[in-house]
Amino acid sequence: MPRIRIDAARLNRSLDELGRFGETPEGMQRIAFSPADIQGREYTIGLMRQAGMEVRIDPAGNIIGRRPGSEPGLPAIAMGSHTDTVPSGGKYDGALGVMGAVECVQTLTDSNIALRHPVEALVFTNEEGTSFHRWLIGSRAMAGLLEAEDRDPVDDVGVTLTTRMADIGGDWPRAAEATRRTDELAAYFELHIEQGPTLHQSGTPIGVVTGITGRATFEVEIIGTANHAGTTPMTHRHDAMVSASKLVLAINKMAADLEICRVSTVGSIEAHPNAVNVIPGTVKIGLEFRDLSMDALAAGEKELRRAAAQICQEDGVRMEIYRHRFTNSVPIENEMQDLVEAASNQAGLANMRVPSGAGHDAQAIATITKMAMLFVPSTDGISHAPQEYSTPEDCANGTQVLLELLMLADDRL
Amino acid sequence: MPRIRIDAARLNRSLDELGRFGETPEGMQRIAFSPADIQGREYTIGLMRQAGMEVRIDPAGNIIGRRPGSEPGLPAIAMGSHTDTVPSGGKYDGALGVMGAVECVQTLTDSNIALRHPVEALVFTNEEGTSFHRWLIGSRAMAGLLEAEDRDPVDDVGVTLTTRMADIGGDWPRAAEATRRTDELAAYFELHIEQGPTLHQSGTPIGVVTGITGRATFEVEIIGTANHAGTTPMTHRHDAMVSASKLVLAINKMAADLEICRVSTVGSIEAHPNAVNVIPGTVKIGLEFRDLSMDALAAGEKELRRAAAQICQEDGVRMEIYRHRFTNSVPIENEMQDLVEAASNQAGLANMRVPSGAGHDAQAIATITKMAMLFVPSTDGISHAPQEYSTPEDCANGTQVLLELLMLADDRL
Repeated sequence: MPRIRIDAARLNRSLDELGRFGETPEGMQRIAFSPADIQGREYTIGLMRQAGMEVRIDPAGNIIGRRPGSEPGLPAIAMGSHTDTVPSGGKYDGALGVMGAVECVQTLTDSNIALRHPVEALVFTNEEGTSFHRWLIGSRAMAGLLEAEDRDPVDDVGVTLTTRMADIGGDWPRAAEATRRTDELAAYFELHIEQGPTLHQSGTPIGVVTGITGRATFEVEIIGTANHAGTTPMTHRHDAMVSASKLVLAINKMAADLEICRVSTVGSIEAHPNAVNVIPGTVKIGLEFRDLSMDALAAGEKELRRAAAQICQEDGVRMEIYRHRFTNSVPIENEMQDLVEAASNQAGLANMRVPSGAGHDAQAIATITKMAMLFVPSTDGISHAPQEYSTPEDCANGTQVLLELLMLADDRL
Repeated sequence: MPRIRIDAARLNRSLDELGRFGETPEGMQRIAFSPADIQGREYTIGLMRQAGMEVRIDPAGNIIGRRPGSEPGLPAIAMGSHTDTVPSGGKYDGALGVMGAVECVQTLTDSNIALRHPVEALVFTNEEGTSFHRWLIGSRAMAGLLEAEDRDPVDDVGVTLTTRMADIGGDWPRAAEATRRTDELAAYFELHIEQGPTLHQSGTPIGVVTGITGRATFEVEIIGTANHAGTTPMTHRHDAMVSASKLVLAINKMAADLEICRVSTVGSIEAHPNAVNVIPGTVKIGLEFRDLSMDALAAGEKELRRAAAQICQEDGVRMEIYRHRFTNSVPIENEMQDLVEAASNQAGLANMRVPSGAGHDAQAIATITKMAMLFVPSTDGISHAPQEYSTPEDCANGTQVLLELLMLADDRL
């Protein structure tokens, strides 16, 4: 049974209030660095201060709220997520992890409970990467994972990241100073909505995240022969659209039937000349597959190349396969998963292990400290859309488990 | 054996000379109403006059060269095609039919042969329809087939058809006066390159055209559910790209395997949101099928709807099928086909019956007079491209058969 209880009504009120910044009939538009984002950040800072935290903004624009610990010299236990949204996004992605973290601290403060470790609530800058087409900007800065191309990019309207960072209290030329030493943090916990249907459909309130999946992205250019759609007999065609369609189905089968990897998707397509009366000469598709196992991604690439070669032979077309990016999977240590499970049991809530198909700030922070994640159900698995919804009870359950996790970690770490 | 012979060298020289107007490294750019088109037309008018024709330009910009007949009051036998090209097109499409017609008249004049009927060589305006996105402008005007939307369209740079017509000697507000009575023409013959591989691959010098195929065009919108490509399990997807790919293959199979219609093509595709990390929610495809039989087009539509319904049921997606346009097929009368065959035999050239997969001025003119078409081989079936090529011998063969056809028609009609 829980030792202390978070205030479910207060948590959901905070979520609703944060959700008013950037709310439109087409969904949330709290894009990083926008006025709505800045309002949401100010709202969050206010809540942190109410909960008794000292607040600072690091050079990468990350908001760091801190509550002191009782035992001198211990590293902090951090919790957090992000408050920016994708365009036409939902009210829960990121927001729950931040409002949950603040609620945990408020509950501790209200109950006059001192923890041994300092506790931090973190809001990471531009997790979604909508601005500057670079994601996890804040968490990668904190983890020391910035790359040369992150130095001072310009956004779609021509404004530099340095300027945008100044708007939110950051100081981008000094971003390197946002990096934290591994001895500063004892652990990082992120509560998030699942963004998939598994918990909702199985009726399980808590997901113990087993890891964040790796991702392989490719572009394939299928090169056939453009020709007159009326005069070219079927037997003489090298129709890039037909060959591309076969490849789309082979890629889908890779995860759906062969189970070579967890998911595989062809998300984009472009045909040339793309006229109804011309046999397509060239088709480009963009695809990805994801799995917790990097071996599975390698096997996926092998199957992609095998299927492509077979179709080329059958159809007399050529294919160029461009290997774009392999993002490493981030497994979560068994002991950290067990800690989430123990916290869930402590809260009296059923749980199951689930992988995270999406990326999160946690994957960057995992490089500098121990990391765990927990999920709550997403109704119908919908996310990054206005229909994104987790019930007030689900949000409260997740936050209660986050508090149990914090207290367990304070005891054990 | 031929009674008289066309001058093969002269014909091919004319083709080459005409092919210099609008020639670029990227192919022919003799777009209707362009300076190159006007130069090509003037060159052609010069050849017509050399061949002893009187030349006029009708209000629709069609060039009409006329050689008088010996028997008063008979309608004219017309031959022709067009001199405009598609962008980056070839030197033979259209040009051969015009240069062939002029060569036939030159040959008659050189040989002092009088025919009973007047003979006309015709150059139709904007057959390709690259300008104003309206094709067969000249031949439809001559046949009285203009529609309300043809009244005074504006081209892509904002110039009216009336202005463009004045540039080439036409008078578009009086386009109705370009329409000819059915008793003015005894027949119309069009020599053209095949634009498909059948003659070239079978080594047959002459194609007796059986008809111009009808065409059915559709757009299909496949409506699935957009969702996160990383978090949505394969079992919970309604991936519009996957369903669209199945439909592309079903449409291809319709002609390639089931032989429901002669050709079927998906030429265009558009996916939404078209991002590599999002399962496509909507995909639109543009497709067409063609056949000489309108029943085959109807059967094609039935199969399209059947296949679409089956995929919808399998995949849990919806499809909206928009029926865009059915262009009627234009069969060519058996007696006219037989006349082309007889002309081909007279010239000592092997022939075979072939359908025309592409549209031609002849299909408009067929509504006001008897019509026949003959084809010569296209190397590798390539057309509407710089690689378009018919050998000098093929061009001469076709022109010789056109002359025989003219003389047979003069005897029999």
